Amino acid sequence: MSGRAGLLDPAALGEDLARSARARSVLGAAGAAQWLRERAAANAFHVERIPFSKLEGWSFDSVTGNLGHRSGRFFTVEGVSVTTDHGPVRQWSQPILLQPEIGVLGVLMRRFDGVLHCLVQAKSEPGDPVAVQLSPTVQATRSNFTKVHGGSGIPYLEFFLGSEGGTRTVVDVLQSEQGAWFYRKQNRNMVTLTDRDVPVEPGFRWMSLGEIQRLMTVDHLVNMDLRSVLACLPYTAGESPPEGGFARALDASMRPDAPAARSLPEVLSWLTDRRARIDIVTRTIPLAQVRGWTRTDEVIQRDDGRHFRIIAASVSATNREVRRWSQPLLQPTGRGLVALFVRRRRGVLHLLLQARAEAGTTAVAELAPTVQCDEHSYSALGTAPAFLREVRELTPGQIRYDTLQSEEGGRFSDATNRYVIAEMPPGWQEEPPAGFCWVTVHQAAALLRHGHYLNVQARTLIGGLYALWAGGFSPVAVAS
Amino acid sequence: MSGRAGLLDPAALGEDLARSARARSVLGAAGAAQWLRERAAANAFHVERIPFSKLEGWSFDSVTGNLGHRSGRFFTVEGVSVTTDHGPVRQWSQPILLQPEIGVLGVLMRRFDGVLHCLVQAKSEPGDPVAVQLSPTVQATRSNFTKVHGGSGIPYLEFFLGSEGGTRTVVDVLQSEQGAWFYRKQNRNMVTLTDRDVPVEPGFRWMSLGEIQRLMTVDHLVNMDLRSVLACLPYTAGESPPEGGFARALDASMRPDAPAARSLPEVLSWLTDRRARIDIVTRTIPLAQVRGWTRTDEVIQRDDGRHFRIIAASVSATNREVRRWSQPLLQPTGRGLVALFVRRRRGVLHLLLQARAEAGTTAVAELAPTVQCDEHSYSALGTAPAFLREVRELTPGQIRYDTLQSEEGGRFSDATNRYVIAEMPPGWQEEPPAGFCWVTVHQAAALLRHGHYLNVQARTLIGGLYALWAGGFSPVAVAS
Repeated sequence: MSGRAGLLDPAALGEDLARSARARSVLGAAGAAQWLRERAAANAFHVERIPFSKLEGWSFDSVTGNLGHRSGRFFTVEGVSVTTDHGPVRQWSQPILLQPEIGVLGVLMRRFDGVLHCLVQAKSEPGDPVAVQLSPTVQATRSNFTKVHGGSGIPYLEFFLGSEGGTRTVVDVLQSEQGAWFYRKQNRNMVTLTDRDVPVEPGFRWMSLGEIQRLMTVDHLVNMDLRSVLACLPYTAGESPPEGGFARALDASMRPDAPAARSLPEVLSWLTDRRARIDIVTRTIPLAQVRGWTRTDEVIQRDDGRHFRIIAASVSATNREVRRWSQPLLQPTGRGLVALFVRRRRGVLHLLLQARAEAGTTAVAELAPTVQCDEHSYSALGTAPAFLREVRELTPGQIRYDTLQSEEGGRFSDATNRYVIAEMPPGWQEEPPAGFCWVTVHQAAALLRHGHYLNVQARTLIGGLYALWAGGFSPVAVAS
Repeated sequence: MSGRAGLLDPAALGEDLARSARARSVLGAAGAAQWLRERAAANAFHVERIPFSKLEGWSFDSVTGNLGHRSGRFFTVEGVSVTTDHGPVRQWSQPILLQPEIGVLGVLMRRFDGVLHCLVQAKSEPGDPVAVQLSPTVQATRSNFTKVHGGSGIPYLEFFLGSEGGTRTVVDVLQSEQGAWFYRKQNRNMVTLTDRDVPVEPGFRWMSLGEIQRLMTVDHLVNMDLRSVLACLPYTAGESPPEGGFARALDASMRPDAPAARSLPEVLSWLTDRRARIDIVTRTIPLAQVRGWTRTDEVIQRDDGRHFRIIAASVSATNREVRRWSQPLLQPTGRGLVALFVRRRRGVLHLLLQARAEAGTTAVAELAPTVQCDEHSYSALGTAPAFLREVRELTPGQIRYDTLQSEEGGRFSDATNRYVIAEMPPGWQEEPPAGFCWVTVHQAAALLRHGHYLNVQARTLIGGLYALWAGGFSPVAVAS
């Protein structure tokens, strides 16, 4: 056990978080954009695609064909074979990233003028589509903090793994990452609250919780790790629901006493049923045994060009622990679409989640947004996932959130998803298909106290709902 | 979603369960023993050890050496390699059972004279050390109910997977099984409550919840699956704690408002910390690549004879879906020891659990009893697990529960553990070592609403506590 001073009273904490999220900003959002522009200019970050043979420290194993680092750490590119009775394709193999070690994604909080602020970092990752994004205070693999790559110390790590006094734990849970690309990957999502003065290192800045939450409505401004961590915050809606239909329904949905379509034990029983019924056997195989994919010195890709490819990149940075390195990256071949359908039921907003099994999912299936797909690959398959047609037929008046966000730029190159939250009319899909379930925001938040219930895409969209809620639904005027 | 009528009010259910568990039995316990003796006599069940070459339908793969069934279902014997920084051995490989499909362990409940009863089965399994044991109403792999082995229908399955009317879900959760022997195995633990008249098939019998709970103090009477399912029941202690120090402390420990050494979020944060810090990489490998083990036609065993062996058996039965079959079994080389240390803190019983990582654990580590080991193998290692010395030094006055129980006889042969609950003095291990944590019974029960928190051995001992609590600590006079 660390020397941290334990946890806060949950009810008081939830209300405190909610009050802070809706408080007016101490620092203007425009100031944040300006600061990010400055950080981008200061970071001479250069990424160049290279052939695999030019990778430093990385090589293909002569027997298995797996791509790994000579230290045996970081991650490897291996193969996975899948046999299932779920989804349109019943048997396949594919490359997949293996990263068994559990990293820390940590956000440090402190109160200024009574409002909770987060210490965020302007961070560049080689695969990011923009120069810098807002990131957690600490974003470190175990390889980072055990110094495998000879990097310097990780600032602020002592607030998460150490025994820094005056620090309390707000969030501490292992959450999964992309099951289609990572084999059973999980990271430790943490938020700690300190009452100490904390020196602000270059590249870091205190931003109010509400400000960050609201910036999640802007394209490519908040990185995946920060979105994931903040989605796990135990918000409790306050006493006064705002005016307005959608806003009031969202606020009601965050309350513990919200009348839900199903009780939480019923939701868990439904998920247990889905997990038990989906027949899926996944096992890692040598990358050399993956069928239908071809490796050249430039790329590993499917013969039909679908889904994603593995490439190599050389990276030069001034703001990283190591100033120059090279590494493999997974690059999707198209933009993804992730949509959450919501509707009001007895004045309470409900979210339509699906139980989704992927090659790298640890617990058979996790709860995912209503639609999560790679449209390009599906069109080639001649089939479409449930509710994709409904996404295409959405009218502007139904769309509550529509933002481009990128996934972890340390592993993925240009992995951009369009994230949509759309409101469907009352009564729509009262009894959804077997693989889908209506839940309240409060129920989703209760499940986020535990790992492996809500997938990383669902966490981004829970964050999207909190962004709408925190912003009072006013547009945020920031150029990224 | 099934057509079941949803769940019951949790608070009322918990009290109802508790009242039933402590109610005097409608049927005498002596009657149950007599019934089991009759069932044992009626079941001409014959198990004979055979060489692998005599197995019907099972064979070793010529490339991998894995042992599997020609249908591709049931289970396989493969290898697993482990690299870790946890425990006395840092790198090893071993055979392990793979059974990716999720089975159903289902207990059907009904109220008689206001007291909840369970429909139990007197079931024989080839590896059981006794002729018959009390088993759940349904104990079926997916291979069973999809008829891979051509068996007949599973009685009562419609109360769990079907849409049998008048049935409500009490428990429905995926729980893990032995992580040292199974690779990431989980089964669906279910309890459903019906208000219908249910025909009682031969070999089945209604027994009151309290009667079954109390019979857990008798050696080899309640099988692992029934122990596991009943441990997941959401008991809530009633209004009147019994007299007596230990009894009162146990009762207090089952209450939601019991003052705990750590809050539940703190316990979860501690477990997250352990899971994140334990560096363990496990991966399945071909059985032929397992080092330090030798396969003959008779046995697969470690060259030093430790831990367990894989054998083959021919089975003839009259009370199974298939009347004659052969199969591999995993046979431990010695009896295991599983001990839970408890102590009172502010009048509330606390349980000392450890975060334990095993080769087949899905979620890095699960909560296990204070001591869980194979004494024979440890003595050869020249090291001892934490608190084993304290188990050896226990005095009779400290021992609250001491029972031999066997593990799943469908996969394991003569796998017997001595299960002990022992009370330590107040103040003992106020600050336990980093890998250990004090929890209340109510906290353990709350964690059992979710999978992969309490391992199967811990579930047996939670059941042991419920047995003591249900029995009012009077000895149960039953010969098994």
